Amino acid sequence: MIDCPLPRVEDDRVLLGHGAGGRLSAELLDALILPALGRGGAATSAPLEDAAVLPTDDGLVVTTDGFVVSPLFFPGGDIGALAVNGTVNDLAMRGAHPLALTVALVIEEGLGLADLEAVVTSLGKAANDAGVPVVAGDTKVVGRGHADKLFVTTTGVGRRIPGLDPSAARARRGDRVLLSGPIGVHGVAVLSERENLGFVTDVASDTRPLHRLVQTLAPLGGHLHTLRDPTRGGLAASLNEIAGASRIHVEIDEESLPVPEPVAGACELLGLDPLHVANEGCMVAFVAAEVAGDALRLMRSLPEGADAVAVGEVTDGPPGRVVLRTLVGARRVLDMPLGEQLPRIC
Amino acid sequence: MIDCPLPRVEDDRVLLGHGAGGRLSAELLDALILPALGRGGAATSAPLEDAAVLPTDDGLVVTTDGFVVSPLFFPGGDIGALAVNGTVNDLAMRGAHPLALTVALVIEEGLGLADLEAVVTSLGKAANDAGVPVVAGDTKVVGRGHADKLFVTTTGVGRRIPGLDPSAARARRGDRVLLSGPIGVHGVAVLSERENLGFVTDVASDTRPLHRLVQTLAPLGGHLHTLRDPTRGGLAASLNEIAGASRIHVEIDEESLPVPEPVAGACELLGLDPLHVANEGCMVAFVAAEVAGDALRLMRSLPEGADAVAVGEVTDGPPGRVVLRTLVGARRVLDMPLGEQLPRIC
Repeated sequence: MIDCPLPRVEDDRVLLGHGAGGRLSAELLDALILPALGRGGAATSAPLEDAAVLPTDDGLVVTTDGFVVSPLFFPGGDIGALAVNGTVNDLAMRGAHPLALTVALVIEEGLGLADLEAVVTSLGKAANDAGVPVVAGDTKVVGRGHADKLFVTTTGVGRRIPGLDPSAARARRGDRVLLSGPIGVHGVAVLSERENLGFVTDVASDTRPLHRLVQTLAPLGGHLHTLRDPTRGGLAASLNEIAGASRIHVEIDEESLPVPEPVAGACELLGLDPLHVANEGCMVAFVAAEVAGDALRLMRSLPEGADAVAVGEVTDGPPGRVVLRTLVGARRVLDMPLGEQLPRIC
Repeated sequence: MIDCPLPRVEDDRVLLGHGAGGRLSAELLDALILPALGRGGAATSAPLEDAAVLPTDDGLVVTTDGFVVSPLFFPGGDIGALAVNGTVNDLAMRGAHPLALTVALVIEEGLGLADLEAVVTSLGKAANDAGVPVVAGDTKVVGRGHADKLFVTTTGVGRRIPGLDPSAARARRGDRVLLSGPIGVHGVAVLSERENLGFVTDVASDTRPLHRLVQTLAPLGGHLHTLRDPTRGGLAASLNEIAGASRIHVEIDEESLPVPEPVAGACELLGLDPLHVANEGCMVAFVAAEVAGDALRLMRSLPEGADAVAVGEVTDGPPGRVVLRTLVGARRVLDMPLGEQLPRIC
């Protein structure tokens, strides 16, 4: 078990970076939360997935996610749609089709009812668009200054699509790494709204449900090894999690990475790495080499996968490591981000 | 549909009382949240239950609850145990046995890691005591002043106990109203800690799981009509919800109500009504008269039901109304509380 060197030194307090999906998040989970839950030791060596299989013997999967994005409304979406799509996607990354959602709201006293109504309407519309009912909910209100407008926690229950069993631990040597669409869009869209960056135009969040894209990959069956939606921590965090859980070495071609021009420009100006920026509407898939062409064709048959590309492969090399082959032919280690680059991005 | 008179007049903003489980909460739900979710009209006339049956044809039930109790630690419990027990109990009130829990944390930057560890340890212990695994989780961190230390949202999935189908809408004329134990304890315990009321001693929260108490009632089968744990809004809110959903008239004997001496004393000093104070470890049951004696015997066979008593019955009279027969023989309407008496009690 990890000896928790980092959290303990910072005055023994929770830092913003503990929630950013990077190394600090992983350490908080491994060193404090899982052991405190009584899941230390052997259990922590199990791969951490986006969703857990229920002990019901009938392929049910469950996932939960808290959303604290600031601001509540941003180009291309809002916290309501984000919550629904994020939860649907966590189920989808385990190869599951969503059956039902629950929603719990924590509201700061003084939030405008019009804002609340807009968020809940958007949430309802996103659930309807994804074809999944909201079956239960809860509402709490806390005093002014004890929350920041609105937090939304969604939980999803889904059922495994027959034949699919993707897992962060199932990627293997020879796999092709596919990406369903451009990266960096969501994070830059939220940041541009939050910081009033007038120079960032034409960037809207990619928040969308991905379960139909996963469904369309069902013919791949067991050849579909791993799925992950690169949200907090970006593509770099997802690839590192998969490389660690599967004990594999991943090589990514920088040239092949789809980074839209406005995203690249904004990241350069702000000193951000697009590989660390959160996405909410694309996924990375590890598939056996022999089905990579089929997988790309299937993904491209849907709008949400129209720009799907191959970005790398699993090769020989030190396991647990992700390497970027740069445009000029150099190779650099693509590390797990440490803490927050962009807090409260989802 | 309700015309939403109250929320709209108060400057169109969310009030603390909207989260208190009383009339304002019900109006926010009926007038804004359910219609915005696309569940207006016919759907809102369905009774609101503590947990929803999943569309899976196999008796699965799901519930979600956000916990924002302040302070995090109080006599008899903390936010971690409260979250687990509250969610187990919401499943139990639908006659379901818990199968799995998920936990989502929203943490304020600066929370002591020792406090976080204490809460998560208590949460894990409560889940273990209830015999239900925590299968998925999520952690978010927000900046200082954007939350109040820690919010916990738990979601539970359970399976119906064969033969049981309790519902807020199934109480009927002639039913006996049973209460599994003393009321007012949790609310007074939290308040005494929050407000540093030195004169309140010997009051510890009753937070505990009630699924075993429900399991022990399985022999009653269809004669067990309704179960509810009177949390926010207290016994008065639960009885009014049941009276409304079942279109029945409920009479309660004040004399029979088990209000512990320290709770009665604290409520008198503070101007609170024990019938409006939240509970976290007792339940109210509506059962057919012919099984009332059996039900009490079964409940009393477990520690959590040792003090079970009959407190009233369903009689002729205006439906949707709850009446209290007072000690001096008068009858007064026991109304739904309007808004917050004790905010952030759970």
